[in-house]
Amino acid sequence: MNTPTPSSRLPDNPSTLAQRIRMGERRALATAITLSESSRTDHRQYADTLLQVLSPYTGHALRLGISGAPGVGKSTLIEALGCHLISIGKRPAVLAIDPSSSINGGSILGDKTRMEKLSAAPEAFIRPSPTAGSLGGVTAHTRETILLCEAAGFDVIIVETVGVGQNELAVAHMTDCFLLMQSANTGDTLQAIKKGIVELADIVVYNKIDIDPQASQQAIEQMKSTLQLLRTVAPQPVFNWAIPVLGIAAINGTHIEILWQTIQHYADQLAASNTLSAKRIKQNSAWMHELIHHALHHRFFTHPKVIAQLPVILDALAKNQISPQQASSQLLAYGDQK
Amino acid sequence: MNTPTPSSRLPDNPSTLAQRIRMGERRALATAITLSESSRTDHRQYADTLLQVLSPYTGHALRLGISGAPGVGKSTLIEALGCHLISIGKRPAVLAIDPSSSINGGSILGDKTRMEKLSAAPEAFIRPSPTAGSLGGVTAHTRETILLCEAAGFDVIIVETVGVGQNELAVAHMTDCFLLMQSANTGDTLQAIKKGIVELADIVVYNKIDIDPQASQQAIEQMKSTLQLLRTVAPQPVFNWAIPVLGIAAINGTHIEILWQTIQHYADQLAASNTLSAKRIKQNSAWMHELIHHALHHRFFTHPKVIAQLPVILDALAKNQISPQQASSQLLAYGDQK
Repeated sequence: MNTPTPSSRLPDNPSTLAQRIRMGERRALATAITLSESSRTDHRQYADTLLQVLSPYTGHALRLGISGAPGVGKSTLIEALGCHLISIGKRPAVLAIDPSSSINGGSILGDKTRMEKLSAAPEAFIRPSPTAGSLGGVTAHTRETILLCEAAGFDVIIVETVGVGQNELAVAHMTDCFLLMQSANTGDTLQAIKKGIVELADIVVYNKIDIDPQASQQAIEQMKSTLQLLRTVAPQPVFNWAIPVLGIAAINGTHIEILWQTIQHYADQLAASNTLSAKRIKQNSAWMHELIHHALHHRFFTHPKVIAQLPVILDALAKNQISPQQASSQLLAYGDQK
Repeated sequence: MNTPTPSSRLPDNPSTLAQRIRMGERRALATAITLSESSRTDHRQYADTLLQVLSPYTGHALRLGISGAPGVGKSTLIEALGCHLISIGKRPAVLAIDPSSSINGGSILGDKTRMEKLSAAPEAFIRPSPTAGSLGGVTAHTRETILLCEAAGFDVIIVETVGVGQNELAVAHMTDCFLLMQSANTGDTLQAIKKGIVELADIVVYNKIDIDPQASQQAIEQMKSTLQLLRTVAPQPVFNWAIPVLGIAAINGTHIEILWQTIQHYADQLAASNTLSAKRIKQNSAWMHELIHHALHHRFFTHPKVIAQLPVILDALAKNQISPQQASSQLLAYGDQK
């Protein structure tokens, strides 16, 4: 692979780039995000320094996670909510964490159509996360992107995720408020309960209530009683917050203002009860452990001897020639070799 | 700590102990399990050698996981099932994986009362797992105990776990057939769905149907329709198996024979479809990765420099003096020092 010297590719020194980001220069922010997503060591070092310089200017935004199955209307909601935020003087940034995300799924034309106004607004910033995982995985990149966007002056960071895998959990653990979007059918509610997403939710939203108001109302009531039942079996981890279940129609802006007030109210209570700072300290500690975890595994499983021996050992294991204990001891010994 | 030389404490050489275990000597089996649960290096090495020697005589038992909330009647079921197994010529071993388990919870008198016949039967073996986790955690010990019991000639290994934490998942991943015990109230069903335990189940059992037959029947029907719904949203990972939902009354043996036939039928299908060997290869590979994971973390977080610096770094992180990236880099650097 062609590896240019860092200076030939890297922009200004980190302090200058930091300055440009803080001045609101969009291209500088995009460059910084790209560097932080890179797996190249010099890029990573540059990004680390940059984040260090910008650190005092981070942490002041409201971090909002939005999760929901494909087709539930996340893009439509983000478009409506984003435009509402701009209308009240806020600056929203939208990050998508999933490879299958509407923003990130390759359907760029589709996205532009769906978030037409927001993507054209100078007050907003929309950015997909890379699909390829590297050190710390996609989630670590998204965490860094949140900080970069905060330093650039965005005050509501929306992190979008699709109902796939462990991503909801990751997004819930990097945001202040987690919003679950549901559609009005029983399977969807059950699915959310089953996957444990419901217990991550701070607010539940049913979209498209204009299509079938009666079915939507039924679904909302069902979710409310489910939440009450779950509340009795598992106490809420934060302050006394009865999870609101709202109905909206994002396509024509119905109840978007109420939704935002609910989010804002949640954020206010979070701050007033001192839960926010405790939550973020816990998130940072978890993030640190995650980075260490990834680094230890990355080092071990990229060790040349381990790479060479892993298939041999797995094969012997599958043939019952060695036990899992022997397999792990042998691999660990290879990992210790120079 | 007083560390005697291995020879002063260790029993015969591993081959001799292995021989005694295979001859069905109960004390030899108990000694082997204790050694495999030890965190002492010499004990671990001894246990590893022993497992290696015994390896050809393992793998032939039916490994059955049983999970359920406290009070649902796991001990009563195991007593009834165990006695039935003995009556048809089987030799059951019962292992408990949870610190809060009925077997392991300190209430030895209570357990003896609850598993009176089984604990007195020469054909059966009952053993709690240690509460303290060491290298590989409690689950690794239980896996080893399964192998030791198999080598000792037990042909049905029952692993019991309470509905707490990640233990269900761990038990489901080390057994061939996972049996979920439920009680006849809605909260219990919802709880099981919420925690994702239902999707681990190969068979669901409602106990105490003699107390309120109508409520039990209702609960069984509700679970059946829930399972059908879940089946449509998440396809079954193994062969075409519609999870049976059975009603039993363990206290007087009602339907215990049907339950065993169902378990046996499941095991037969597992073997016939070649799913069993694939499942066990996957389990062994996962076990190997778990052992490596624990070893890497154990090494890192017991490194003297890491132990010394971790509180300092966590404190700086909580005060926002350093970022999670810096915190992890600094700790990783300490871990690299001699």
